[in-house]
Amino acid sequence: MTLTDLSMFFRPNGVAVIGASRDPQKFGYSIVHNLLSHHYKGMVYPINPTEERILDLTVYPEIGAAPDPLDLAVIAIPAPAVPAAVEACGIRGVKGVIIVSGGFREVGPEGVEREEAVARIAAQYGIRVIGPNCIGAIDAHTPLNTTFVTGMPRPGEIAFLSQSGAVAAAVMDWAVGSGVGFSRIVSLGNQVDVTTADMLGSIGQDGRTRVVTAYVEGIEDGRKFVEAASRTARDLPLVVLKAGRSDVGARAVSSHTGALAGDKAAYEAAFRRAGVLSARTMEELFDWGRTLAWQPLPKGNRVGILTNAGGAGILAVDALVDGGLEIATLQPETKEFLRKRVFAAASVENPVDILAGSGPATYAVCLDALLADENVDAVVVIQAPQDWFAPLSLAEVVGEVANSPLGRKKPVLAVIMGLASTSDATQVLHRKHIPNFAFPERVGSTLAAMWQRKQWLENHTPEVEANSLEGVDREAAGAVLIGIDGWLPPDRVEVLLRAYGIEVPGSGLAQSSEEAVELADSVGYPVALKLTGSRIVHKSDVGGVTLNVKSADEVRVAFDGMVSELPSELEIDGVMVQHMVRGQAELIVGMVRDTQFGPLVMVGTGGTQVELLKDVTFELAPLTGRQADEMLDRTAAGRLLAGYRGAAPADRAAVVEVIVQLAQIAVDWPGIEEIEINPLIVMEAGRGAAAVDGRVRVIVGG
Amino acid sequence: MTLTDLSMFFRPNGVAVIGASRDPQKFGYSIVHNLLSHHYKGMVYPINPTEERILDLTVYPEIGAAPDPLDLAVIAIPAPAVPAAVEACGIRGVKGVIIVSGGFREVGPEGVEREEAVARIAAQYGIRVIGPNCIGAIDAHTPLNTTFVTGMPRPGEIAFLSQSGAVAAAVMDWAVGSGVGFSRIVSLGNQVDVTTADMLGSIGQDGRTRVVTAYVEGIEDGRKFVEAASRTARDLPLVVLKAGRSDVGARAVSSHTGALAGDKAAYEAAFRRAGVLSARTMEELFDWGRTLAWQPLPKGNRVGILTNAGGAGILAVDALVDGGLEIATLQPETKEFLRKRVFAAASVENPVDILAGSGPATYAVCLDALLADENVDAVVVIQAPQDWFAPLSLAEVVGEVANSPLGRKKPVLAVIMGLASTSDATQVLHRKHIPNFAFPERVGSTLAAMWQRKQWLENHTPEVEANSLEGVDREAAGAVLIGIDGWLPPDRVEVLLRAYGIEVPGSGLAQSSEEAVELADSVGYPVALKLTGSRIVHKSDVGGVTLNVKSADEVRVAFDGMVSELPSELEIDGVMVQHMVRGQAELIVGMVRDTQFGPLVMVGTGGTQVELLKDVTFELAPLTGRQADEMLDRTAAGRLLAGYRGAAPADRAAVVEVIVQLAQIAVDWPGIEEIEINPLIVMEAGRGAAAVDGRVRVIVGG
Repeated sequence: MTLTDLSMFFRPNGVAVIGASRDPQKFGYSIVHNLLSHHYKGMVYPINPTEERILDLTVYPEIGAAPDPLDLAVIAIPAPAVPAAVEACGIRGVKGVIIVSGGFREVGPEGVEREEAVARIAAQYGIRVIGPNCIGAIDAHTPLNTTFVTGMPRPGEIAFLSQSGAVAAAVMDWAVGSGVGFSRIVSLGNQVDVTTADMLGSIGQDGRTRVVTAYVEGIEDGRKFVEAASRTARDLPLVVLKAGRSDVGARAVSSHTGALAGDKAAYEAAFRRAGVLSARTMEELFDWGRTLAWQPLPKGNRVGILTNAGGAGILAVDALVDGGLEIATLQPETKEFLRKRVFAAASVENPVDILAGSGPATYAVCLDALLADENVDAVVVIQAPQDWFAPLSLAEVVGEVANSPLGRKKPVLAVIMGLASTSDATQVLHRKHIPNFAFPERVGSTLAAMWQRKQWLENHTPEVEANSLEGVDREAAGAVLIGIDGWLPPDRVEVLLRAYGIEVPGSGLAQSSEEAVELADSVGYPVALKLTGSRIVHKSDVGGVTLNVKSADEVRVAFDGMVSELPSELEIDGVMVQHMVRGQAELIVGMVRDTQFGPLVMVGTGGTQVELLKDVTFELAPLTGRQADEMLDRTAAGRLLAGYRGAAPADRAAVVEVIVQLAQIAVDWPGIEEIEINPLIVMEAGRGAAAVDGRVRVIVGG
Repeated sequence: MTLTDLSMFFRPNGVAVIGASRDPQKFGYSIVHNLLSHHYKGMVYPINPTEERILDLTVYPEIGAAPDPLDLAVIAIPAPAVPAAVEACGIRGVKGVIIVSGGFREVGPEGVEREEAVARIAAQYGIRVIGPNCIGAIDAHTPLNTTFVTGMPRPGEIAFLSQSGAVAAAVMDWAVGSGVGFSRIVSLGNQVDVTTADMLGSIGQDGRTRVVTAYVEGIEDGRKFVEAASRTARDLPLVVLKAGRSDVGARAVSSHTGALAGDKAAYEAAFRRAGVLSARTMEELFDWGRTLAWQPLPKGNRVGILTNAGGAGILAVDALVDGGLEIATLQPETKEFLRKRVFAAASVENPVDILAGSGPATYAVCLDALLADENVDAVVVIQAPQDWFAPLSLAEVVGEVANSPLGRKKPVLAVIMGLASTSDATQVLHRKHIPNFAFPERVGSTLAAMWQRKQWLENHTPEVEANSLEGVDREAAGAVLIGIDGWLPPDRVEVLLRAYGIEVPGSGLAQSSEEAVELADSVGYPVALKLTGSRIVHKSDVGGVTLNVKSADEVRVAFDGMVSELPSELEIDGVMVQHMVRGQAELIVGMVRDTQFGPLVMVGTGGTQVELLKDVTFELAPLTGRQADEMLDRTAAGRLLAGYRGAAPADRAAVVEVIVQLAQIAVDWPGIEEIEINPLIVMEAGRGAAAVDGRVRVIVGG
């Protein structure tokens, strides 16, 4: 698959503005004005049937009349006229169209129709469309600004893709104010043609961009997004803020897995898989973005801190430790070197506190020494306000050392604290590509994001398709699914799981106490008796489970007891008699199909309190053994498998196998909507794991 | 107890500066300069043995020569000369001394001696001392500025107490840059006399302060701090940033409770008890501080959002929901009213999205309507950058509506997004006491803090001393502690717990299998057998527990098995035979004594995996039944007591009783260093709870 070519939106040869205007209150004026005032070097063609000149440019009555070269059209006219304008663009042979106008999907059925018309016309003429209902595109290097927004960031290395025009405008204003440069900014609006996934794969491919940032509200085709994001993340750091974290809860909840697999879990699993760095706030999005764009990744997670104030150093330590970073232990040589160059009362242990009264020269010498220390992977330089020197001088010094051959090998982050006295220092640092933070806490999550990126790059291997799993009896599995709509009967669940090599204890369905005794004799004592019926979802809630039944007599008593106590409205298929398995741990392993991202696999602490304990984690299916193994590390249940306080280690490898196979079932049979094994009893290492209770729901035509 | 009078540090009649200088590089110059340039209206006396005039003021050779009125002296001379200078202040009769000089505790034993000398002299003359090693005090209303730092915040309502001079200086610089006013700022340095607890009780008592904020690194006398903080919090919101969260792990760990009771748990418990709002970053400290100072508390947690951009609204919703707030459901009248006043495509459901193109007038009308809606307790007003009007106009409008009689009843928070185009708007909002935030996310934790404050004020009742607990047999309890240093033998543990009304299952210590059988017969089957010895801390780790022993024969087999398998190096006292209790839940209840805050009580999920699950919470002892009850709500174990999926409710009241009594034991017997009951078996409601395994450690002379 080749990348979609969307370069006409950023480096067009000639831009037409349909709806260009002489009225400064109108978008059609601001767009032409921005193209000119931000120095777009190609031809600009205002299109307007009644005007002759706009901003000193020749106006054309229709796009068909505009001469070559012409790659891109920006449409800013009332919605009802838009489809015809897009068609005119198609006839004229432009490559790309940006529709700024609102009045589409967001206003109801009429608008949806208009969007469909636009999509049809675009496909017919083979043109690409951004929008409608967006603010357009910016390339600060071309330079190009097709928006109607005031202000333009300086040329830089950060690409920003936004699903909200307003958020893009706010970011531009912040960029202008803070002196942070951008390469490209684009707002996608209603995504009638060009989607987030399309743009993700394209926006960073300009040779200038060093980090891709994105504001995302929702994703339609989750798997395409994961593919595009993974591809992007292999080349460039990709930081995404997902807005709308509150689960709307539209999912039909019929299992623990379903109850816990909210939108949030799905996005987390997708982002993890794609190597996306997931920011929680706009501030983090650009703290991480500018630092990843400007500074090298750390080789390890050991941070050196240089400060003129103890308190500020402590705040940085707190934030770094929260982010999973380590406070570096300095080499003895470094401490000896520093000792001779700082005040007697200064601390040469990390954080290195050179105390108030030390100036830019001391900072220069100490920063150089920390960068030279092999135990230090990254340095945070902190300056609390003081009266000995101008913060500007420190900014120059830090910028110089951090850009020296030594400094360029390790990330340097600056915390020149305060606001009133430090804005020029911040501008200088940003010009020199050293990110500055007004308070020390923000370096914690920022260095954590860099470290996460570093580890992902090291551990990331192209995905292995899990389809080659051996010993799977797909024929047997397929047979049990035939004719089912809803929950699969327990005997069929067993066949399905066994077909994928998942161990299930011997069992059978009894209709009478004598049948139950026969079954118990054949599967072996002790046994468990379980009421079985399509309406019974959580058996233990209705007194439908009797455990540890040890003899034929006990089987009879238990069977009669369970059946007689049954509420009359509850229909049952019978009583399952199952050999009782005992093991080291009880897990839950489940699968649900997410509308955006497809099958999600879950593992965690099993039993009846799954939803309360919430000790679970999710991954997209299919997955590799390694990914399943990493899932176990993320849950207490998984970590406990190693043995705890003298308990023997449990069979972790068997659990990994079950997770991988369950994911494979989901991939092989799209009709299966959810699967839940709870509990999965895990035996001692080497002895396997058994699916004691499994439930599978099928949707016909799924 | 009357409040310490520390007003001489903020409203002195006359200030002497010992070490005043003509050299602008020296503190002694900057201090005199700041007193004058920031318009202190009282007399300023520079003290210097060799100068005649400094900054056009008469210089006195020594403080004894300075005339009246003279309340306060600021000392900025080399450390070795400081004790004599303090003595001269004492003789001269000043009331307060601020020691700016460094060179004390922070430089080693010599410095500690100097501090002790200063403390002695201060006590002798009855003068109060701030410092050494601090930047002094500011009162923006007096006005007074005894610091050497450039810039002074405008007069306002926020008091700030800092254990770090550098952090105080950074806050001043931020205050000047953002236009946020302060009432008082003080840095306490080494706290040789005036402590954080002293100052907390005093700093807000000026009739101007409406919120107290504090940056704290460590607290020596925790109980005094809790008292002072509680007293302050009853009058004014108190927001504290505790730096240094990373546990140093110096505590000797000999129980689950001890392992989990880090510094962080102790501070959290202390802050909760005192009604302190605990900020995690400097940004939160002042986001919360200025909002609490300027805006009324919400009556409920339902928030209305008014925005011109959907994306920005979503970011606010995410942050608010994370903070435990609700998105208000607007009244039908409100929606009807709004519908007639906004664009057709606008949303009149909350968040109310008036769309780009709406101006300040629409904001005014809609904000007013939201404030009038009885379903709305607080309003967040968001503006994404646009080109229709100046952000400044919106600032004026929001300020006006929020300060109207209607607006003053509910908190209004503004989010005028961006940076370059919005700094004048922010200044205007801050002048009108509407907090502004550059991005929407920060309103979440801010409104959460206000809501927490509101609830604390409503629920807070002066503490009931738990000493009056009835039916406690203190004589019996005292008797078992005699002569013990270390772990209390199990039989004595039982006596102690029973003396406080905590139920313990019948048991006894057997030395032989026949003794075990006799005991089992007397306490009743089934029984549990447990190896007992001072070296055996976690019995199940060494195979030292056999459960569910049902007959005399089984007792013999189990006894012999346990004793024979015993490693020879493990000395035991015998085997405990205990009646086996079964219940609905297994909890852990524990107590450890914290060096700063005294006895801490813990409750949570019991069993062997306590440290892994970490489902525990802490409180200071003593505590009331209500506080114990709230502890249960904070843990999954406690919430489960209500019954889960058909299980009968467990005896929550009995658990509350055990927690309260355990806390009382800690208060009554300071020699008890830690207590742990694990498991506490909780029976069905009304049937009590039994301490199946209890451990108590005593320190002689404790």
